[in-house]
Amino acid sequence: MQSTSVEAEQTALVRRALDQVVQRFHAALPPNAVITDPQRLRTYECDGLASYRVVPAVVVLPETAEQVREIVRICAEHQVPFVARGSGTGLSGGALPHASGVLVVTSRMRRILEIDLANERAVVEPGVTNLDVTKAVAAQGYYFAPDPSSQQVCSVGGNVAENSGGAHCLKYGFTTNHILALEVVTPDGDFVELGGTARDTPGYDLLGAFIGSEGTLGVATKITVRLLRKPEVVQTLLAGFPSTDEAGAAVSAIIADGVTPAAIEMMDALAIEAAEQAVQCGYPEGAGAVLVVELDGPAAEVEHTFDEVKRHCDEHGAFEIRVAADDHERAMIWKGRKSAFAAVGRISPDYIVQDGVIPRTALPEVLGRISRLSAESGVRVANVFHAGDGNLHPLVLFDDAEPGANERAEAVSAAILDLCIEHGGSITGEHGVGADKVKYMGRMFTADDLDTMQRVRCAFDPVGICNPGKVFPTPRLCGEVPGPRRGVHPLTEAGLADQF
Amino acid sequence: MQSTSVEAEQTALVRRALDQVVQRFHAALPPNAVITDPQRLRTYECDGLASYRVVPAVVVLPETAEQVREIVRICAEHQVPFVARGSGTGLSGGALPHASGVLVVTSRMRRILEIDLANERAVVEPGVTNLDVTKAVAAQGYYFAPDPSSQQVCSVGGNVAENSGGAHCLKYGFTTNHILALEVVTPDGDFVELGGTARDTPGYDLLGAFIGSEGTLGVATKITVRLLRKPEVVQTLLAGFPSTDEAGAAVSAIIADGVTPAAIEMMDALAIEAAEQAVQCGYPEGAGAVLVVELDGPAAEVEHTFDEVKRHCDEHGAFEIRVAADDHERAMIWKGRKSAFAAVGRISPDYIVQDGVIPRTALPEVLGRISRLSAESGVRVANVFHAGDGNLHPLVLFDDAEPGANERAEAVSAAILDLCIEHGGSITGEHGVGADKVKYMGRMFTADDLDTMQRVRCAFDPVGICNPGKVFPTPRLCGEVPGPRRGVHPLTEAGLADQF
Repeated sequence: MQSTSVEAEQTALVRRALDQVVQRFHAALPPNAVITDPQRLRTYECDGLASYRVVPAVVVLPETAEQVREIVRICAEHQVPFVARGSGTGLSGGALPHASGVLVVTSRMRRILEIDLANERAVVEPGVTNLDVTKAVAAQGYYFAPDPSSQQVCSVGGNVAENSGGAHCLKYGFTTNHILALEVVTPDGDFVELGGTARDTPGYDLLGAFIGSEGTLGVATKITVRLLRKPEVVQTLLAGFPSTDEAGAAVSAIIADGVTPAAIEMMDALAIEAAEQAVQCGYPEGAGAVLVVELDGPAAEVEHTFDEVKRHCDEHGAFEIRVAADDHERAMIWKGRKSAFAAVGRISPDYIVQDGVIPRTALPEVLGRISRLSAESGVRVANVFHAGDGNLHPLVLFDDAEPGANERAEAVSAAILDLCIEHGGSITGEHGVGADKVKYMGRMFTADDLDTMQRVRCAFDPVGICNPGKVFPTPRLCGEVPGPRRGVHPLTEAGLADQF
Repeated sequence: MQSTSVEAEQTALVRRALDQVVQRFHAALPPNAVITDPQRLRTYECDGLASYRVVPAVVVLPETAEQVREIVRICAEHQVPFVARGSGTGLSGGALPHASGVLVVTSRMRRILEIDLANERAVVEPGVTNLDVTKAVAAQGYYFAPDPSSQQVCSVGGNVAENSGGAHCLKYGFTTNHILALEVVTPDGDFVELGGTARDTPGYDLLGAFIGSEGTLGVATKITVRLLRKPEVVQTLLAGFPSTDEAGAAVSAIIADGVTPAAIEMMDALAIEAAEQAVQCGYPEGAGAVLVVELDGPAAEVEHTFDEVKRHCDEHGAFEIRVAADDHERAMIWKGRKSAFAAVGRISPDYIVQDGVIPRTALPEVLGRISRLSAESGVRVANVFHAGDGNLHPLVLFDDAEPGANERAEAVSAAILDLCIEHGGSITGEHGVGADKVKYMGRMFTADDLDTMQRVRCAFDPVGICNPGKVFPTPRLCGEVPGPRRGVHPLTEAGLADQF
């Protein structure tokens, strides 16, 4: 009885805080920027990871950085949690709403604020889509390098939150390698600048800590991206191998030779089968594995290294090698690879997209173990991966209509992550931790490691209102941070001024 | 009277704490690992920035990571400040000792713990010198890319603390681009792992925040470095120009053409004169400026782009272009550049080495302003810089025997930093803030920006014992961090578990 009345009291508190927040949003924001209608709220109940769904209490659609700051300040004053969301294409539930919180959607913040080609950079708002950055500078021969599969729709703000990768991050790195500076609204509603356009900015490099923090340290409101010159030429090759063993050996040989392709992608037989059914990509018949290798750069360099790549494929048992003669043929080669995730829907009613990393050199061993896991459990696994990076994307197939199938698939999927950890890899290569992989963080990090990260989170967000429940397994009470010391200790401050 | 007795009491407190700490060090460390003899302590009174000198209370020379942890734990228990020092070659006083503190010298931690060429990485202790990493893998065709001028003696731990650059960071980036993971002792004496060998490690990227934190967040005890394959060929060119205007225009043209040389270095007439006197490098006679441009990579690419670079130099008024025919000639070209700092001692009794950054495109404007500053004040300035990065190293010359000369030189030196800030640059390109540039931080960052960094510092080091007085202008009392909340707020924790 007692506890029920405490709960009721808490519910009333929450209700009242949310009502006040909504009222203040209406006063502070333009018309149509505040959504509270349950039907419309449902649009936002999940991101790309549709297996987790939470309807937010309120959605706001700010148009400017100042409006974002105002929203965060209001949330901070009322201690109401908030979650930022870009285009909602994330695959780990990083933008999953909070049932008693505010969802800050950046889709109306789509201005490209500045393009400075002489210094190879641009400043954009967080809602600008990844591909729109490239479109704005393509005519002048530049592009924005990170290329997640969702690049036509995903937002640059989302790329920053998740430190997005893509097929070409083998050579070009992740989003973190292409962001020069950020304007950020901290969880208490201040604007701060992280990074800067000069290299090696003094003070702490918090830019790197913010990128990939999955929305738990604040909301980026202005993003200065690095622009790259388009390479002079691009060459793409498709090679068919008897099995993933030979294909994996070819990958190791290419890298060991000192060649860094723009991308090396691998697909196994089951993934090829699915892609073939979906888009008739015409991959080499009977292949146990295919490699897609792309080289880019100055013509003279690419020509030379392309011959090396072909030689390594030949020497490691490729039975067919095709070279794209033009952009159309290149698009066809990529079509099979890029459709692979969706294509799996053709051969299985349900599937889990896993994302893990292993050292490149452990590829044959881990693929063998995955194959045994699959055989022992009767759960089919299709493998698609960024082979150059050792970033696996196993697709674990199941039929939810079959009793226990989901659980068996989940078990195999989890066992694959264990394999990654066991081989010194990681529980996520590019999709993030979000809501989905919180439970695995304790397997990858020691308590001290996690504690160090959470201290930083507490430093930014002591009340815990900024995307709570994501990334970290057990919400830390920030009061556990070694306490404040109001006095000055004689040792640490003694005579500092006159020493210097 | 009263205040004197408080001071006396504090001094006694400090004395007692230090005595206890020394006793515990003797018990915990090997023989000869603890130095308290005043004569021997004096060896450590400064780093490469000899204008600041402080004799530490104690020096310890640990041999293992565990000993470092023990030292830090003892310091933490007694709240005694400590400063870590590698080889003492830093140029901003980052390793300047604390008069009432412990100096932790890593020079006995020189083991290379692991070399893994297949995955292109090595694990080293912090006292290993920069060049020793390369030496250990050179025979197999690999190297460690960061190349500060001090690379024969500077330690990898010091490179991590200062995020060291070098002539080749135009193409290869700073130390932060070449460190994969760190084992760190936090200021409270725990081991934590930052980063990891998998790309895009989940959780916060605190590796980047630690690198370049100048020893204020802890002590690195194990460093996993990225190894690069040696480029197939290296080509080096020396071009003489009438003035820095033409040389600057050539730099802009080269970069605008999409070429990324490994290095582009510029020296002006005064710097050339000094180098000539010191090492007889035989640079083009009568040059108002020289460029050293180095290209590396696959032979086919380098040949092609080298022709482009020569063409741009020609078109922008180079009156002489020399190409190094072999390693000996290459070494001669670099000798002039690398000796420039020391060489300035030949033409001036005293000088300040300044370090600032501007956008590449602002080079002509800023060089013009520096020249006017010099003319107006009568203070000579020799310019040596990493032109491709916009990283200036003006050498401000003076004669300390002349009354007021030092002050005038300091004023010009400070005015140059103001120019850097005014043009959207930075107060340091690669030497760090240390003790020297603390006073400029407030000109470069807003109070909110600095506050955000200090919150992170407090999260790691709430008592303020880890290299206090460096980097930040006003030591923050960590009690000012928004206070601890021991209760769980109903909104932020409400129903999280059952939402997911």
